[in-house]
Amino acid sequence: MTTALPPTVNPKDRSFLGEARVAERARLAEDVRALIDAVVLTDVPDDEVAAVAEQVRALTARLNATRLPAPPMADTPLDGLPASGMSMQLGNPVSGVLNPVAPPVPFEALPDGTVRSVFTLDDVYEGPPGLVHGGVSAAIFDQVLGMTAGLSGVPGFTATLELRYRRPTPLRVPLTLRAEITRREGRKSWAEGTITGPDGKVTIEATAMFVTPRHLMPEQTA
Amino acid sequence: MTTALPPTVNPKDRSFLGEARVAERARLAEDVRALIDAVVLTDVPDDEVAAVAEQVRALTARLNATRLPAPPMADTPLDGLPASGMSMQLGNPVSGVLNPVAPPVPFEALPDGTVRSVFTLDDVYEGPPGLVHGGVSAAIFDQVLGMTAGLSGVPGFTATLELRYRRPTPLRVPLTLRAEITRREGRKSWAEGTITGPDGKVTIEATAMFVTPRHLMPEQTA
Repeated sequence: MTTALPPTVNPKDRSFLGEARVAERARLAEDVRALIDAVVLTDVPDDEVAAVAEQVRALTARLNATRLPAPPMADTPLDGLPASGMSMQLGNPVSGVLNPVAPPVPFEALPDGTVRSVFTLDDVYEGPPGLVHGGVSAAIFDQVLGMTAGLSGVPGFTATLELRYRRPTPLRVPLTLRAEITRREGRKSWAEGTITGPDGKVTIEATAMFVTPRHLMPEQTA
Repeated sequence: MTTALPPTVNPKDRSFLGEARVAERARLAEDVRALIDAVVLTDVPDDEVAAVAEQVRALTARLNATRLPAPPMADTPLDGLPASGMSMQLGNPVSGVLNPVAPPVPFEALPDGTVRSVFTLDDVYEGPPGLVHGGVSAAIFDQVLGMTAGLSGVPGFTATLELRYRRPTPLRVPLTLRAEITRREGRKSWAEGTITGPDGKVTIEATAMFVTPRHLMPEQTA
């Protein structure tokens, strides 16, 4: 099986990490997520803020002692996804378990061909008070709809993304994103999705169109 | 002048920070951004990753010694913006200087009524290899178009957001988002914007519609 990395990935520039190394680093990323939350909400005195900042700089220096040339990839794709740049990106800002800015949003390919992601967003992702930032929801849709369109094994780039915000999306409660591929036509595929709150009501609907680069299209069988 | 906080802000729940306190905390957030970059790109051995993680947890505990009930707000709005929840949100995940997940994206209201944001995104925001994550761009558009629509002083919620990705958006180079209000009709306002790379070519176009809650509309003068 050929790993369908996107055309601009130079595999020589990328490290492919095995499960054990991912686990240790995922723990660190999770700890930094808690630190981010503390930075946003801390009310300790200024001198304590400055003292913590100094320690943060020291930890950054320790991690930077040896650096990768680019964000690492997993040596196996996410469950249910074919091997691709998208399914193996550990540093992805939406789904990457090694990226502290990512919630991270999980991805579950269901037997019926649809997709489900269940996630909870906290104060770090606040837009209107007590509500999820509309742009954060947009970022999550882009990622999950793109992975949904990629279920066939053919990666594509986002061409259009349209979001319709129906009602406010709450923070701190489980949200469910459901998505499916609705159409394919040559190099184009369309995916649709919704985010639903705990009350079962749809808060946001989204449609996206993805285009597969010509040279990544599967060859026609004669 | 009345500070036009969004309807769901309970001012009693929010701390309003002055310039000096913001500056100290902004320095910490900046240091944590460098830490996030190091977490994504580090290649130090697993035992060093674990040792750093332990230190991160200790720093988190120090910051959590005293916590705010909700992300803080600035006591003065961003330059060029009327006072509102949006212009004073220090913890905003796109523009908030106190939120380490925010690049943060700045906002500049020009004399001609248009808006300019210039920012650079690094590996932490990578989607396709070497390129900006399409969802991150979407989040930035949502924020900046929303602030543009709010220039009149009337805050609104995102109702629709449409993005057209014309060409890849590069990482690690200055990007310019230009935006303007294109139409107002009752409680609705439309804003449009583009992101341009250093070569002057538009990489993404976006249109958004915002709706102002009825009770926040300015009263009609008789």
